[in-house]
Amino acid sequence: MSATNIPEPFHVAVCLFPGFQLLDVCGPLDILNVLNYTHPLKLSLIAPTLEPVTTRTINTPQSSFDQHLVPTHTYSEPPTDHVHALFVPGGFGIRPLVQPSSDPSVQAMKDWIKLIAKNCDYIWTVCTGSALLGHLGVLDGKKATSNKRSFDWVKTQSSNVDWIRKARWVHDGNVWTSSGVAAGMDMTLAFIASLWGDDTATNIANGIEHDWHKDSAWDPFASLYE
Amino acid sequence: MSATNIPEPFHVAVCLFPGFQLLDVCGPLDILNVLNYTHPLKLSLIAPTLEPVTTRTINTPQSSFDQHLVPTHTYSEPPTDHVHALFVPGGFGIRPLVQPSSDPSVQAMKDWIKLIAKNCDYIWTVCTGSALLGHLGVLDGKKATSNKRSFDWVKTQSSNVDWIRKARWVHDGNVWTSSGVAAGMDMTLAFIASLWGDDTATNIANGIEHDWHKDSAWDPFASLYE
Repeated sequence: MSATNIPEPFHVAVCLFPGFQLLDVCGPLDILNVLNYTHPLKLSLIAPTLEPVTTRTINTPQSSFDQHLVPTHTYSEPPTDHVHALFVPGGFGIRPLVQPSSDPSVQAMKDWIKLIAKNCDYIWTVCTGSALLGHLGVLDGKKATSNKRSFDWVKTQSSNVDWIRKARWVHDGNVWTSSGVAAGMDMTLAFIASLWGDDTATNIANGIEHDWHKDSAWDPFASLYE
Repeated sequence: MSATNIPEPFHVAVCLFPGFQLLDVCGPLDILNVLNYTHPLKLSLIAPTLEPVTTRTINTPQSSFDQHLVPTHTYSEPPTDHVHALFVPGGFGIRPLVQPSSDPSVQAMKDWIKLIAKNCDYIWTVCTGSALLGHLGVLDGKKATSNKRSFDWVKTQSSNVDWIRKARWVHDGNVWTSSGVAAGMDMTLAFIASLWGDDTATNIANGIEHDWHKDSAWDPFASLYE
């Protein structure tokens, strides 16, 4: 796919859930916000309900320090137009999603992800988002990476994935998986470079004054938690 | 102030406005979310109304690509407890705020910022947030920095500020101003190091796999837009 036949608007659908990691979502989305100045994009933010989704998880201390993002759709009433890129962030809120659940909204989320993963053009994960996709079988036969501090736990979610510990991100076919949190920004810029060109990605990185690591093998964090 | 006498919870108040830059806000807040696992923090998100605040500005093309953060307070009914750190992000939405306005919520915002800036312990800006604080006189007599692409415009907002072009961030007294967008994360970690210690900040940076630039003079972006 070259810059001349990229669909417009390019539709990105983000999977939200309580306890998502804020920067997993908002780093890549801020980059896409800037891309949208020059290239038409469409965003869907899918969540269990239309209520704003909190970053807070039951695993963190009670505190009045959290944020809420407003979704546009639910997993039971998702967008009906074609999704070009499915984006699954991570965070502590991923952990309960790989456990058995009687919550119908959790099942609706998993069903929707599996359906869209088969039909979309690109799949992106940031951080432990790859644990959920591994658990759902979406990454079967693929190389993938994940958060480094949680890497050993993530690996337990699927033995059918070739988990790559040392990588800023891994690109295998139409699947792009990044390491923890801030790594999602470097992967997003690499994805933009692959579709819209290196100049477009570099201009965005310079505009937001981000020190873009262009080498997907750059990963000083992998050895910290082995 | 040492780690033994930091107030708990440490209260951070963020100024939101339509057209804020998502990463200006969510980069530092994600870092503070992680700090909050071990150190009690309190967050207030102040906005013109209690409606969710959009990243979209009138200066960008019409598109369905934006995000909304949910505020906790308004400028006319702000939090009544002491604010330890006042945090002003940037974005294209800053531009109309330095123009004359008959909107009472804009005047309420400016009045509140000027009041809290006199009474809080620390002032942080990211990106063009320093243009608004310069305009309001809050930075008079201080060294400060800002977004590099917008630097010449920012300087026009106050001749009473010693504007430093080449800096990842500038720390002058109780005022911390960062360069554009992603620079806010490096500044936030430096602030955390100054209060809670370098180990705490390093642990957070490693946890979110952020390549923390610890040198406030590191700034490869300053020369791009001169």
